[in-house]
Amino acid sequence: MDRYRIKPGSQVDLSRHDPDDRSAFDGDKAAGKAETAALNGRLEALQELLYAEGRHKVLVVLQAMDAGGKDGTIRSVFEGVNPQGVKVASFKRPTPPEQAHDYLWRVHGQTPGSGEIVIFNRSHYEDVLVVRVHELVPESRWRKRFAHIRAFESMLGDEGTRIVKFFLHVSKDEQRERLQERIDDPRKRWKANPADLEERKRWDDYQAAYEEALAETSTEQAPWYVIPANANWYRNLVISRILVDLLEGLSMRYPEPAEGIPDMRVV
Amino acid sequence: MDRYRIKPGSQVDLSRHDPDDRSAFDGDKAAGKAETAALNGRLEALQELLYAEGRHKVLVVLQAMDAGGKDGTIRSVFEGVNPQGVKVASFKRPTPPEQAHDYLWRVHGQTPGSGEIVIFNRSHYEDVLVVRVHELVPESRWRKRFAHIRAFESMLGDEGTRIVKFFLHVSKDEQRERLQERIDDPRKRWKANPADLEERKRWDDYQAAYEEALAETSTEQAPWYVIPANANWYRNLVISRILVDLLEGLSMRYPEPAEGIPDMRVV
Repeated sequence: MDRYRIKPGSQVDLSRHDPDDRSAFDGDKAAGKAETAALNGRLEALQELLYAEGRHKVLVVLQAMDAGGKDGTIRSVFEGVNPQGVKVASFKRPTPPEQAHDYLWRVHGQTPGSGEIVIFNRSHYEDVLVVRVHELVPESRWRKRFAHIRAFESMLGDEGTRIVKFFLHVSKDEQRERLQERIDDPRKRWKANPADLEERKRWDDYQAAYEEALAETSTEQAPWYVIPANANWYRNLVISRILVDLLEGLSMRYPEPAEGIPDMRVV
Repeated sequence: MDRYRIKPGSQVDLSRHDPDDRSAFDGDKAAGKAETAALNGRLEALQELLYAEGRHKVLVVLQAMDAGGKDGTIRSVFEGVNPQGVKVASFKRPTPPEQAHDYLWRVHGQTPGSGEIVIFNRSHYEDVLVVRVHELVPESRWRKRFAHIRAFESMLGDEGTRIVKFFLHVSKDEQRERLQERIDDPRKRWKANPADLEERKRWDDYQAAYEEALAETSTEQAPWYVIPANANWYRNLVISRILVDLLEGLSMRYPEPAEGIPDMRVV
């Protein structure tokens, strides 16, 4: 899956990343779904081990354009995992108390503790994306944030958090189809928001903002992956695989039992 | 499922509640599991609707003796539900900042917001259970807590929270088998704690504390259910059924689309 990782210090040109790429899997959609189901079973067992060992913390950052598939990813990749071991933190428009603090404050409060997996649905990256595109703060201010974010994530990494960041990469045509489907399907219509169509007009600005954010903040400790996301099944497969590889790489073990436990008889 | 609900104002004698009862289901274990799977599918759809509508808040309280099956219930009943819509709050031994506040403070901070389901794995009820059995505060203090808790839960209910509370009722023999299995199974041994065996010696004190807590705090707005929990499959079935009934009783609807949305074309 290394092919989707942004190497630290490299430039990013999203037009050279194919949202329809399937090169990491030989089979068709049905085979891909079966493979993902098998990976989810392993993810479940690994999450239990992570919790039992209580040594590592895992942070998964999800970013995407509107209708890019963040909600669907969470549902498909984590649905089989014990809800006790996974927390989802969604970052929407900041509330007044959140706005009264620096932009990392609300994010820091939601980072995982030992044995936990936390998924960020949107994140501090919005503060160099929507904030930049809409000029909510001047460039002199948001530009410094790349360094803040690198320092923050490096601190988290040094203190025991494994971080992995996914940009779900869909094409502009695919976004159009998904937004239209949201409007046309009575069960999805409640999600449709005229503001999404306004945001779509700034597609190029967002892509440029993503390109710089990915280039500036993909590090060894907290890498970005650009996930081909036009096909949901392939997106789920790739993300499941990366997460399973990450957790298996931690060499986790069940803790030793407390003294005297193995021979104890319950009466 | 009303047979398992504690009527407000009634006495509770746990010895008259059979932990092996199966009277609410005609079929065998395999049929029960199939039924639970079907209920879980409905629970998933209802959770999505709850989130979409964003009107109700749902709080599920789980209490049980050690090895009573709280973790297994969460895994089995909620595993199929989108992790984005369900949060689990586990209450362990209070931390120093938690101990510096009243006992409802940490609990209040974890109650559900609109459109959310929160599961309490243990809860403020520990403050009239373990606290009582171990005499951590004098009776004059913990006895007032029944009234506090009724008032607190009544306030939550008046402000839009639907509360349902489950006591997972296992027999003393069943607890012995489960604790012994924890010790004997190398994969579960890390969970075994000599303190659990000490707690088991106070079985009768805990049962008496539960009986009073259930009787004092089962209200129309926040009912207690005593769930026969010796058989995991039956426990899961009954709880899934109660939750589906509760959510279906809310008469939820998808919100109206924003103005102009139904005719909009995405370009």
